[in-house]
Amino acid sequence: MIVKVKEPLEEEFPLFKPGQILYTYLHLAASKELANELIRRKVTGVAYETIELPDRSLPCLTPMSEIAGRLSVQEGAKYLEKEFGGRGILLGGVPGVQRGKVAVLGGGVVGTNARKIAVGIGANVTVLDINAKRLAYFDDIFGSSITTLYATDANIEYVLKESDIVIGAVLVAGETAPRLITRQHLSLMQPGAVIVDVAIDQGGCAETSRPTTHSDPIYIVDNVVHYCVANMPGAVARSSTIALTSVTLMYGLMIANLGLSAASRANEALKRGINTIDGRCVHPGVAKSCGLPYSEYVA
Amino acid sequence: MIVKVKEPLEEEFPLFKPGQILYTYLHLAASKELANELIRRKVTGVAYETIELPDRSLPCLTPMSEIAGRLSVQEGAKYLEKEFGGRGILLGGVPGVQRGKVAVLGGGVVGTNARKIAVGIGANVTVLDINAKRLAYFDDIFGSSITTLYATDANIEYVLKESDIVIGAVLVAGETAPRLITRQHLSLMQPGAVIVDVAIDQGGCAETSRPTTHSDPIYIVDNVVHYCVANMPGAVARSSTIALTSVTLMYGLMIANLGLSAASRANEALKRGINTIDGRCVHPGVAKSCGLPYSEYVA
Amino acid sequence: MIVKVKEPLEEEFPLFKPGQILYTYLHLAASKELANELIRRKVTGVAYETIELPDRSLPCLTPMSEIAGRLSVQEGAKYLEKEFGGRGILLGGVPGVQRGKVAVLGGGVVGTNARKIAVGIGANVTVLDINAKRLAYFDDIFGSSITTLYATDANIEYVLKESDIVIGAVLVAGETAPRLITRQHLSLMQPGAVIVDVAIDQGGCAETSRPTTHSDPIYIVDNVVHYCVANMPGAVARSSTIALTSVTLMYGLMIANLGLSAASRANEALKRGINTIDGRCVHPGVAKSCGLPYSEYVA
Amino acid sequence: MIVKVKEPLEEEFPLFKPGQILYTYLHLAASKELANELIRRKVTGVAYETIELPDRSLPCLTPMSEIAGRLSVQEGAKYLEKEFGGRGILLGGVPGVQRGKVAVLGGGVVGTNARKIAVGIGANVTVLDINAKRLAYFDDIFGSSITTLYATDANIEYVLKESDIVIGAVLVAGETAPRLITRQHLSLMQPGAVIVDVAIDQGGCAETSRPTTHSDPIYIVDNVVHYCVANMPGAVARSSTIALTSVTLMYGLMIANLGLSAASRANEALKRGINTIDGRCVHPGVAKSCGLPYSEYVA
Amino acid sequence: MIVKVKEPLEEEFPLFKPGQILYTYLHLAASKELANELIRRKVTGVAYETIELPDRSLPCLTPMSEIAGRLSVQEGAKYLEKEFGGRGILLGGVPGVQRGKVAVLGGGVVGTNARKIAVGIGANVTVLDINAKRLAYFDDIFGSSITTLYATDANIEYVLKESDIVIGAVLVAGETAPRLITRQHLSLMQPGAVIVDVAIDQGGCAETSRPTTHSDPIYIVDNVVHYCVANMPGAVARSSTIALTSVTLMYGLMIANLGLSAASRANEALKRGINTIDGRCVHPGVAKSCGLPYSEYVA
Amino acid sequence: MIVKVKEPLEEEFPLFKPGQILYTYLHLAASKELANELIRRKVTGVAYETIELPDRSLPCLTPMSEIAGRLSVQEGAKYLEKEFGGRGILLGGVPGVQRGKVAVLGGGVVGTNARKIAVGIGANVTVLDINAKRLAYFDDIFGSSITTLYATDANIEYVLKESDIVIGAVLVAGETAPRLITRQHLSLMQPGAVIVDVAIDQGGCAETSRPTTHSDPIYIVDNVVHYCVANMPGAVARSSTIALTSVTLMYGLMIANLGLSAASRANEALKRGINTIDGRCVHPGVAKSCGLPYSEYVA
Repeated sequence: MIVKVKEPLEEEFPLFKPGQILYTYLHLAASKELANELIRRKVTGVAYETIELPDRSLPCLTPMSEIAGRLSVQEGAKYLEKEFGGRGILLGGVPGVQRGKVAVLGGGVVGTNARKIAVGIGANVTVLDINAKRLAYFDDIFGSSITTLYATDANIEYVLKESDIVIGAVLVAGETAPRLITRQHLSLMQPGAVIVDVAIDQGGCAETSRPTTHSDPIYIVDNVVHYCVANMPGAVARSSTIALTSVTLMYGLMIANLGLSAASRANEALKRGINTIDGRCVHPGVAKSCGLPYSEYVA
Repeated sequence: MIVKVKEPLEEEFPLFKPGQILYTYLHLAASKELANELIRRKVTGVAYETIELPDRSLPCLTPMSEIAGRLSVQEGAKYLEKEFGGRGILLGGVPGVQRGKVAVLGGGVVGTNARKIAVGIGANVTVLDINAKRLAYFDDIFGSSITTLYATDANIEYVLKESDIVIGAVLVAGETAPRLITRQHLSLMQPGAVIVDVAIDQGGCAETSRPTTHSDPIYIVDNVVHYCVANMPGAVARSSTIALTSVTLMYGLMIANLGLSAASRANEALKRGINTIDGRCVHPGVAKSCGLPYSEYVA
Repeated sequence: MIVKVKEPLEEEFPLFKPGQILYTYLHLAASKELANELIRRKVTGVAYETIELPDRSLPCLTPMSEIAGRLSVQEGAKYLEKEFGGRGILLGGVPGVQRGKVAVLGGGVVGTNARKIAVGIGANVTVLDINAKRLAYFDDIFGSSITTLYATDANIEYVLKESDIVIGAVLVAGETAPRLITRQHLSLMQPGAVIVDVAIDQGGCAETSRPTTHSDPIYIVDNVVHYCVANMPGAVARSSTIALTSVTLMYGLMIANLGLSAASRANEALKRGINTIDGRCVHPGVAKSCGLPYSEYVA
Repeated sequence: MIVKVKEPLEEEFPLFKPGQILYTYLHLAASKELANELIRRKVTGVAYETIELPDRSLPCLTPMSEIAGRLSVQEGAKYLEKEFGGRGILLGGVPGVQRGKVAVLGGGVVGTNARKIAVGIGANVTVLDINAKRLAYFDDIFGSSITTLYATDANIEYVLKESDIVIGAVLVAGETAPRLITRQHLSLMQPGAVIVDVAIDQGGCAETSRPTTHSDPIYIVDNVVHYCVANMPGAVARSSTIALTSVTLMYGLMIANLGLSAASRANEALKRGINTIDGRCVHPGVAKSCGLPYSEYVA
Repeated sequence: MIVKVKEPLEEEFPLFKPGQILYTYLHLAASKELANELIRRKVTGVAYETIELPDRSLPCLTPMSEIAGRLSVQEGAKYLEKEFGGRGILLGGVPGVQRGKVAVLGGGVVGTNARKIAVGIGANVTVLDINAKRLAYFDDIFGSSITTLYATDANIEYVLKESDIVIGAVLVAGETAPRLITRQHLSLMQPGAVIVDVAIDQGGCAETSRPTTHSDPIYIVDNVVHYCVANMPGAVARSSTIALTSVTLMYGLMIANLGLSAASRANEALKRGINTIDGRCVHPGVAKSCGLPYSEYVA
Repeated sequence: MIVKVKEPLEEEFPLFKPGQILYTYLHLAASKELANELIRRKVTGVAYETIELPDRSLPCLTPMSEIAGRLSVQEGAKYLEKEFGGRGILLGGVPGVQRGKVAVLGGGVVGTNARKIAVGIGANVTVLDINAKRLAYFDDIFGSSITTLYATDANIEYVLKESDIVIGAVLVAGETAPRLITRQHLSLMQPGAVIVDVAIDQGGCAETSRPTTHSDPIYIVDNVVHYCVANMPGAVARSSTIALTSVTLMYGLMIANLGLSAASRANEALKRGINTIDGRCVHPGVAKSCGLPYSEYVA
């Protein structure tokens, strides 16, 4: 059993042996070649990204979303500084001076975590979502320290006009993010406002977003600072590693202790993580994406 | 020793006897006639309103300011209702809908208490004051749940435009309240906004304020609802009575237990409460207001 | 497609055309006549009040309950004033003086929102419910700032004796509210205490409740002030309109964008909102209430 | 320079040398003999308990009061258990069950710290004090999670009747505590209620209090459990030692680094700590208590 | 219908009559004899401990877990005192002195309630659980006032080293608790640290745990204080009784009002509470444990 | 009257006219030349930095300290990222992962504001100060969300070892900051930890600190990242300008409205701001620093 973080490199393919368990991020939907190799060499591929709980949440992706959400406000606050073309606003204000305004588009894991830090740092925070139950839960937890709004077009335009920082947090794992912020929208925003597009790994939720890196994280379009770093959690590698491995370890130990067969009988989520085994593709989504025949795995 | 709440009525004057201690609100500065009677009849007049602590605060007036401050938001919220000409806004909002906005002009006792209720009820609260230390203290206590602004003209205009309720809380006991809100200002305000002028007993801090009563508490000028009830604490008479007598009782018991002379030696604040004794006026401010000769009281 | 808030008036019936979509509150169970018209004229009736999520909650009714819940405390606080026959108690107390006591009967949407405002305004709050999980959730969210009690007869009598305000919040949409407060109970209550019966639209949860209006909201029975305004959210019409339309708009746009058939395939909740189509009654509850034949709608 | 915690024992007297600095708790007012020895042997006695800040607070006693205050609730909660004769009440309650009630008599350092723990542990807390400013500060800090009452006789009787735990926290360092709870009062209390008398080192604030020890901490009078351990901080010796030495060390280092003369010129509080020097008594209070001639120390 | 708290005693068996409903804790899995009697005498046995909600929670056991969880911190704080062999640490610290550290192993009902009190009392609290969703919920509710960690071996060892109090809260009703703390682990702990093993009724989660009583609650192994009282809620009998009967009463009244048959048709949870009826064993788990034939109860 | 922010430049000296009021930061102690010019040309110099309230606080410096304090945590969090040589730790942690640790050296204005943001962002915060009253106030305001420690050498070493970010906040306006962190201390710290030295304008509180700029803010010594930007508030120029001018405006308006003489009679703090007038130096500290004769200003 091999435990990794990233997909195997092409030069590692020849090392595969039949019956080996490869437990890592596989992203086979994006690499038919790897899928074919795993099948050809009868490698058992267990992918972090398809381990899925009964409520359809993805436990091995959640920690990365939590980290990106919390980082997003920290980054936005930094790039609001004058030096970087930002508005020169202190998010938390000081006594006698207005707080900065943060709009969080999306109230999922990323948005929830962005909101915690934004409220903590003293900003005036508005969260937009289309799910009334989410908004009510936020109201329970955060009370009058945030404003919640339905994510209607009118409300989105309103917050774009008002905000110093806009956090794009409307990503759904595995899907292209909706384009909520168009090029025209930028002209509504205040010069020096910052967009932090956490959805950049799914294409971004602003039309003007394009991936950047930790070493060159921002660029400016129409006077609006864009922070669109792909793989945001890499900035805090130590915390991210612990967060990820704490979760993957649990499933890994089940495999190691019980064997894959028993482990996947005992744990439905883990079973969904199995992509290939015995030369067959046993995950319906992956099979569909890669054009491979699907065959059910009976543990 | 007679303990009352209100000043004695004219028909009660003949009942005064020399040496009696009359312990009540006296407001002699506003009634030379009463002052003269007390002096003529050698009544010892101890006035709640001039009992004064070393830090110049007035312990027998504070509870009434606390009550008026808390009530002010309750009243403002009520008269924001459509029925009364208000904007039809729910102060606390609900999930997905903006909170109402409350501006509190003044961060003294009234303003502090108004702010507590306004924050509690879920409004978006801004407090204006000219004292940076007060604003910093509010920031310590209330953190990011309120905005603090310096009470500059620009900021006052800004909050008048934005707010659903404006609380006039810039009163200083015994002085005429400053006129912060002019008639022109009303045109900046949103139709149906509410002014609660807690300073009405000192003349009000809006040019358009005039005293009203609990039975007919509001009127409308230029589409702005005015709540200007004089003696606001009367609305919650039970709470007000306990609040007032808890404080006055303490000083009253000192007089009763120790005698006035010893009590005023032991307690400087109480000593300042003595206005007349032995046919002399012994409070410098009262003497000046009533045109009476001042003579120091040596306990 | 016609979007309204209230049911169509009788004089509007002749304007109906076959195939029209009428999207509004319909309340057909209460009006067989309207139901028959819709069927006869082959109007597609989509009713806000029967849109129902898988967890059986009613998303288009929730915002109104949230608003009524929050308003209820504001109203109770106001009518506790001496002027209206109330106890003359300030709900939030002041330092040195007891807070007022609020009992909230029922921990659903109305009760949850009542409690937020009651706690915020500084009252001593007790919430009663029969659901232990709800009480535990309240304890998580509100910690030691409220008391939770099981809604036993003994506890109800206990809180009636103690409370300044009792919020009747035990309504279940579409059902008659249980009569928790009998006429005899009133004698347990303190003179001048206030009952705010939010369940009045379902008949009220006090035996002595009868509907009142915003212009004449209260009456007194056995020294207890009753506030029983039907359609409470009307008091804050602006907030209520935004709250309602934010939710109904979402479903309305689905119909407009996808067509009713595709929209109701995509969204089970919306499908349940369809009461009549093509001259048939397709909602089982409505069919039963109106004595109409039920026929399933296959989108 | 000798640094100790407790007073020197009689057998240590012969070890004293002229010019030595003895820096410890001295409590000379309670031991003329020690005072005479220090004078006779020309020892410089610097006493923790008379180091006094300009605002009259005693920095080396404060940490012990903080600890006793926090411990008091912990002890009260424990001895409320059935096993010890207590009422068998869980202070924090659980969802659906009433919280226990704690009354804290006195809002000084002990009372403030008691209140923090009592609120934290989930009790229903009432604080009584005669100082309106203290009550207002508590209201600022604790908001609606506590009730504040003026310490009138009526209110004391009220809380004795209602409370599960009564914390006697009305001590003033160096003075006999006032007797707020009489023997008759006990009959008002509920059987199994607990009095924690933190003022026991100053004689206790209950008539029925007598000092107990950590190994035998409680006794019962008239069905009321009394916890009256003298030297409460000894129970948590490790925390207490750090708390005390953190403060005394600061003054000790000043003496060591600057010499006593310069140190007491630089620090007025430290200067007040000097009780004896060069065969003279230089602290007016100590001189008076011990019947010694007072002579001013000019640093 | 007989309502009790504890199982019937052997001498009570002859009093059983056919058709009687015995509603109490039965624990038949632990007593075949009682099971046989109930069947032989055709008694209807309804057991608190098998009433089970659709989400598999046990409503009649939850209140006892809540109480034990809250008590656990109170007990741990007490036995940290020097007198009992503890570290002599004040859990809440004081200004300038470190807080004590509490580790809570398990984030279920017991752990959640332990955490509330531990945070409230001012301790530095770490909660360990294997369920990421639980940890995220704690983070929502408690924010930065606690630390959450995955319950990996490394993290367990880390907290054992650091903590003053360890709360063993990993119990699952009806199952043997996992042994998370071995004898070797004790040597990692600080001398005078305290283990409160709330799981003792299920065998304890420390290898060195053995049941103790309220009158002799602790013992020391390898310098670590062990508090392992079986039936912890008995310490606060009054609160426990109310907590338990509030829940059991609700089901009891259903039986009394509707009859058992109708009640169990109306309420699935109650139906699962029926263990024996008409001489048959109708609960599959009980049947299996007692080796009795199972027969379904059709209400 | 000329109002500026910075000191006048040398080329502006010839423009000075007798009797002009120059109201700006003057920092004459650092520039004898400017002092001489003002005196020679009989300019009235009113310096922001010497306006001083009766409690010795400096109202025109406070807002800058508030901003620097809040920024300090934001900057520290950013430079903890891997990219900049930092530890790669997310300050707020995520559920299941430890929070980062922040030590704030000094509990004055800078430290108080640093602490607010550090707590808000979710860090584990320790504040060190030598003033027990400050620590107690922090405990009142922040409760169990921070740890307070006395600033002893042992505690400073302890926090250097443990912390991810150390905020140097021990500055006293106008004095050289104490050197609390020596070069040797760096070896105690974790590789990649960050020092944010807010005291850099007063020389810094770390031996290895040297001023940096917003465009090149950090450098690394012994694996410890140093952020030592002089004039930190410049990063958020917009907020800083409002904060500063809100305060300076108030005093400026007094001068403009009343004339300097009357204004300085009415306001003692403003009077202390006058450094030069009529060719004389009227501020004792400035006179001493510049070797000029001092002459009292009688307004």
